[in-house]
Amino acid sequence: MGLEPVKVGLLGLGTVGGGTVKVLSRNAREIARRAGREIRITRAAAKDYQPGTIPGTESIEVTDDAFRIVDDPDIEIVIELIGGYSPARELVLKAIENGKHVVTANKALIALHGDEIFAAAKAKGVMVAFEAAVAGGIPIIKAMREGLAANHIDWAAGIINGTGNFILTEMRDKGREFGEVLAEAQALGYAEADPTFDVEGIDAAHKLTIIASIAFGIPLQFDKTYTEGITRIEPQDVAYADEFGYRIKHLGITRKTDRGVEMRVHPTLIPERRLIANVDGVMNAVLVKGDAVGPTLYYGAGAGSEPTASAVVADVVDVARALTTDPDNHVPHLAFQAKDLSDMPVLPIEDVETAYYLRLQVRDQPGVMARIASILGDAGISIEAIKQKEPQENEVEVPLVLLTRRVNESRMNQAIEKIELLESVKGQVMRIRIEHLDG
Amino acid sequence: MGLEPVKVGLLGLGTVGGGTVKVLSRNAREIARRAGREIRITRAAAKDYQPGTIPGTESIEVTDDAFRIVDDPDIEIVIELIGGYSPARELVLKAIENGKHVVTANKALIALHGDEIFAAAKAKGVMVAFEAAVAGGIPIIKAMREGLAANHIDWAAGIINGTGNFILTEMRDKGREFGEVLAEAQALGYAEADPTFDVEGIDAAHKLTIIASIAFGIPLQFDKTYTEGITRIEPQDVAYADEFGYRIKHLGITRKTDRGVEMRVHPTLIPERRLIANVDGVMNAVLVKGDAVGPTLYYGAGAGSEPTASAVVADVVDVARALTTDPDNHVPHLAFQAKDLSDMPVLPIEDVETAYYLRLQVRDQPGVMARIASILGDAGISIEAIKQKEPQENEVEVPLVLLTRRVNESRMNQAIEKIELLESVKGQVMRIRIEHLDG
Repeated sequence: MGLEPVKVGLLGLGTVGGGTVKVLSRNAREIARRAGREIRITRAAAKDYQPGTIPGTESIEVTDDAFRIVDDPDIEIVIELIGGYSPARELVLKAIENGKHVVTANKALIALHGDEIFAAAKAKGVMVAFEAAVAGGIPIIKAMREGLAANHIDWAAGIINGTGNFILTEMRDKGREFGEVLAEAQALGYAEADPTFDVEGIDAAHKLTIIASIAFGIPLQFDKTYTEGITRIEPQDVAYADEFGYRIKHLGITRKTDRGVEMRVHPTLIPERRLIANVDGVMNAVLVKGDAVGPTLYYGAGAGSEPTASAVVADVVDVARALTTDPDNHVPHLAFQAKDLSDMPVLPIEDVETAYYLRLQVRDQPGVMARIASILGDAGISIEAIKQKEPQENEVEVPLVLLTRRVNESRMNQAIEKIELLESVKGQVMRIRIEHLDG
Repeated sequence: MGLEPVKVGLLGLGTVGGGTVKVLSRNAREIARRAGREIRITRAAAKDYQPGTIPGTESIEVTDDAFRIVDDPDIEIVIELIGGYSPARELVLKAIENGKHVVTANKALIALHGDEIFAAAKAKGVMVAFEAAVAGGIPIIKAMREGLAANHIDWAAGIINGTGNFILTEMRDKGREFGEVLAEAQALGYAEADPTFDVEGIDAAHKLTIIASIAFGIPLQFDKTYTEGITRIEPQDVAYADEFGYRIKHLGITRKTDRGVEMRVHPTLIPERRLIANVDGVMNAVLVKGDAVGPTLYYGAGAGSEPTASAVVADVVDVARALTTDPDNHVPHLAFQAKDLSDMPVLPIEDVETAYYLRLQVRDQPGVMARIASILGDAGISIEAIKQKEPQENEVEVPLVLLTRRVNESRMNQAIEKIELLESVKGQVMRIRIEHLDG
């Protein structure tokens, strides 16, 4: 190799940190053949690391003080794999202040503090790369930021949380309850002891926030991302969706409209013939619609030790390559030049328009359907399909399922309020948004 | 914008050339917000161009002599969209000689003359970008070359010819004959008047040759790519595949084995539950298996005016960004540094191992199955499944369909020769390879 090895400092030796050491050591020669130089982790920081437990760490000096690494003048690139907000934020800002480039897999950090971090990096002329923060090993940031650079992006929709997709897939394949599958996912190690981040959509919302900024050139606005989890989905919803030719997926969706940008994470019915409807188990996929290219889809493992390490190491190679570029010519962090970000508003969820799946528990008596249809009709909501089960012996209540055409969310909410007041309707209306993903 | 506009010369104003002008003009501001500078086509070359027929060409000086553009000292990047070998090759080499960077969509040129072109570019320190040459608008070159840079690639398999995939999809959806669907594809403009390049797999072989080089760091070896078309596939093969839970796709496959690299394009049965089996119509998709990331898939439009232009323009933005990079730090043309290419041999098709679908026309009489099974057994070929249709009234011959386990191709050829000699077997054995794409 003609060029000097790049000296890298690694913060964190957990699942992804360990994977990064393993991949860089196993594929060292192949990576150097691509990068034109050796990528060498010289120092790593980890609390309570037991020497020898990760192959490839033999030649790495391990310290328990991460700040010693970001202050080390020999280190050119810092990989942050500690996760969480603090001290990750302080370490990244300190590394930047010291003129180092940063690679991170920390979606929460980027979604919440990215604007501050990117501004600091721009001032110093260093790069902050975060491919691993969205959809693990899938090179989705690179695809959107560089591969689709010619396009006006119309929208993007992604299955960007593997745990949630595993649970929905199992519910469909085996007709099982949410809680039961979640317990199994926890036993298998797919879900955390506290599954809130995954099943309530917070993890997906972090990633969607980043996707939206890259798609449309807007600042990171996690607090404006609408987030709804999958905990209320019942096996019967999965089964009804199937009968209508749909799958239920937990999607992150962002779309540019004339009135603003939609940013939302929620369970969604999508037609089963769409490729993304067939992305099952823990796998992730992001569908991106550009005005020139049309729909494109990117699929792969969204989490895990080596898939995430794959993205981390690709970023390190990219940064190493760009070391000799004029900073004005770096790929901008959020796809668009920092001074060219747009202040386009984010659309409140009430102003978003989608089609709907509605499931109601109704008394099996004449006139019920007419009353519901008239409430929807008065609100200007068109019904596309209706299914009502025959009551079994002795049953007085039956489920009624409706698919509607596209309507503004606040109007749908008002109609649902009125429907829930009907004496013949029991309990709450189950409401799931529908996206056809064909526009 | 802080940086000067990049001056681009465009060779060819046909389908893709026109799309490139349109996309660059329609999305000019958005592209400049990403690239940090304006991308300006100042001159274009086209034979018999009627001024005003393509919107966006008003400010472009159109000449009918392409060599005037590659010799123009003001032009920094030349886009070659003429296609074919000559004068495309001479123009590209001249542009390089003149110190210009080149962007091309010409898969035939790269697959056959890429090594010569890249060597010339390396000597001059200029870039040759060719994202549009493989799978149209899908950023597959970028994904493999940069996004998966950390991986040892195990194999890649792609649906990389839209015409062929449209024909196979129609044959399956409507149970129609190959010839009938081909005629319709020609009427719709999906297939050329001379469809040989598409249906015989030559176009796919050009693209697969490029994919293999990028995956494994080997020189471009189009002449060693095994190529088999889809013209012999019958509706009954599509139907039998369905019954066994498979789809027939025209795949380009490349795989690294201990004995060499497989490079082959042929009809292939793949399990219907694989995502790539559900890629229908004119769409393309490439499945890439890396040792760290696992399987990843990239899907989108593989041809057409604006999808291909999307890739062309993305390359122009990339090249514009890298103008200030030390040439040693450019992304290498074939993913690996030129001096680090490998001389790993390409495996002859006879040495390739796959499972097989066999369809025979046999006399409906006792002992036939036993004779066939014993030929296969003697050759060490295991049978995984058998299906024999009941004869209809007056029929003396019936189709017999077999699925085998994996076996070396030359051994299978020998067994088929013996089977075809059996008196109770009529005509030739129809043989289609099976890939499970799960390894």
